[in-house]
Amino acid sequence: MNHWRDNVRTMVPYVPGEQPQEGGIIKLNTNENPYPPAPGVAEAIRNMDADRLRLYPDPSSTALKRALADRYGVGEDQIFIGVGSDDVLSMSFLTFFNSKKPILFPDITYSFYDVWADLYRIPYLVRPLTGDFRLRREDYYIVNGGIVFPNPNAPTGLCEGLDLIEDILAHNPDVVVIVDEAYIDFAGRGKSAAVLIPKYENLLVVQTFSKSRSLAGMRIGFAMGSPALIAALNDVRNSFNSYTMSRAAQEIGTASVLDETYFQETAAKVIRTREQAKKDLAELGFVFPDSSSNFIFASHPRVPAKVLFQELKQRHIYVRYFDKPRINHYLRITIGTDEQMAALKKALAEIIAEQA
Amino acid sequence: MNHWRDNVRTMVPYVPGEQPQEGGIIKLNTNENPYPPAPGVAEAIRNMDADRLRLYPDPSSTALKRALADRYGVGEDQIFIGVGSDDVLSMSFLTFFNSKKPILFPDITYSFYDVWADLYRIPYLVRPLTGDFRLRREDYYIVNGGIVFPNPNAPTGLCEGLDLIEDILAHNPDVVVIVDEAYIDFAGRGKSAAVLIPKYENLLVVQTFSKSRSLAGMRIGFAMGSPALIAALNDVRNSFNSYTMSRAAQEIGTASVLDETYFQETAAKVIRTREQAKKDLAELGFVFPDSSSNFIFASHPRVPAKVLFQELKQRHIYVRYFDKPRINHYLRITIGTDEQMAALKKALAEIIAEQA
Repeated sequence: MNHWRDNVRTMVPYVPGEQPQEGGIIKLNTNENPYPPAPGVAEAIRNMDADRLRLYPDPSSTALKRALADRYGVGEDQIFIGVGSDDVLSMSFLTFFNSKKPILFPDITYSFYDVWADLYRIPYLVRPLTGDFRLRREDYYIVNGGIVFPNPNAPTGLCEGLDLIEDILAHNPDVVVIVDEAYIDFAGRGKSAAVLIPKYENLLVVQTFSKSRSLAGMRIGFAMGSPALIAALNDVRNSFNSYTMSRAAQEIGTASVLDETYFQETAAKVIRTREQAKKDLAELGFVFPDSSSNFIFASHPRVPAKVLFQELKQRHIYVRYFDKPRINHYLRITIGTDEQMAALKKALAEIIAEQA
Repeated sequence: MNHWRDNVRTMVPYVPGEQPQEGGIIKLNTNENPYPPAPGVAEAIRNMDADRLRLYPDPSSTALKRALADRYGVGEDQIFIGVGSDDVLSMSFLTFFNSKKPILFPDITYSFYDVWADLYRIPYLVRPLTGDFRLRREDYYIVNGGIVFPNPNAPTGLCEGLDLIEDILAHNPDVVVIVDEAYIDFAGRGKSAAVLIPKYENLLVVQTFSKSRSLAGMRIGFAMGSPALIAALNDVRNSFNSYTMSRAAQEIGTASVLDETYFQETAAKVIRTREQAKKDLAELGFVFPDSSSNFIFASHPRVPAKVLFQELKQRHIYVRYFDKPRINHYLRITIGTDEQMAALKKALAEIIAEQA
């Protein structure tokens, strides 16, 4: 009896950051945007027609795709849309990583990559970052079945230059290279690998509405690449679920993309607060890689990260702590509002004074 | 060059029914509900807080899960929620069908099953329905890696009794048996296999908000089963995407479940119209299995289904036609409002008069 258990795919799932449901918390643990989405989003909600929800959504998300294609200067056949960038990345693993050769990604990176590889039984090889958390381009010259890395990287916040990305692409014409740009909008202009798409048919650039567009709650991500890559992704997606994007997601997502001014202003505000937070953290003795994202990956030479994490939580400030080799001396602190960061600074100063 | 194409998973995707974006069409082709969702849905939209969309949703969809558990009399640990029942079924294939033995499903059935089996490289064996489109229980006594069938079946609309389902379960304690109940709410009371869950740990019952709850546009489906099955599904889901259900889907879905009266009334209205449509179609000479769903699978002895399909489309009435062996003499006609069905009847009478 119970032999059905023998055929169950047993997984050790990814563990997301805590999502406390109670209020009164300063939530700097899951890289959400402290500012609301574009005003057009509230308007899209006001205009949402409950009666129309009885109908299936447009399976191609045409309006959202068109808005993205216009915004990013690519063809509509170069955009793939999914339920957050996790869905887009997971579908990309399933679609493109079918070689018997291992795929490559850094040892310190988004913790979902090895989970997806396990889920789809894709062989993989981790390539350690340098001591200062940099990607070493030569590590990606070896024979492989595909490459994926975030840029800026998570949880380090470091952004590699386009020359490194192009070098990796030039050395890997026979596999798909995925650049996971969840945080690119906080890196300043001219950093996205999207400019390389016309030159490299095997480049997939993945972005999300969850961070810079303040829409983590709506689950919208997208990929840009050559029409050939996007067509393959769509075929797999359509073999999985014809209608992944709800009418609400399509309407809200489109409203967000159409307000470029708000988007730029919000990203600029987060960047300004981040630069101030770097000064404040340095003042308290923290060391950290120079973040290009909406978080700072910081370590204190005298107070263990785990203690800081727990003490902050006592004070109702949530940050992220990873109990993993090489990064267990660090906290990943999301950039909040100026007020939230001031409260964080005050709390950290107190804790350090008590502990050190 | 271009060897990256060698490792692309090449799929022949499922083709959903047409979703014409223009108005003025009588849309009876994708089994949507002709009535709007519960009034609480419009209220949930009015109450939706755009600012909160910056935050990730509750990854466990606790409120929606609680509402479903209460409604269906199971534990919260017996409910799995996904992006439509396609997402739930696809995740279930990935989670439970990992045997080298073939899974079994009927030859005439929901056309996504073989697509998912191909996607995940699951061996399968189709078991032909009888000449009158019935499931033969003995066909499911052979050694297998899992069983899945819709009840009521699509596109036939026929509902098998609980005795047949329990017999199949009793013969298959060592594999997971999935009963796909997308249309069960149109079958009348006491037909859902959910009552067998306490007795069979290997039974998974899948339902959807797309049909009886008039929420195809929001993409919500769910499964009920033993805590062991649900835990395995959640682990795989969490290995794929931590946050599949948006805040909008959670809030709207919960509002729908909480209005039981509206739900019952709407299902009853569709059933009444269906019974009238059976009389009307019989009057026009159609033959059809006795549908327990929100569609009728009808064939005319003198006018080919393909001609009827095309002629109806000329008259802006969309129905579904499957150009496949054994079912290419049939139209699948979704039950609309009484007015829509009267217009359909009139159009069919004209076409038959012209063609016959």
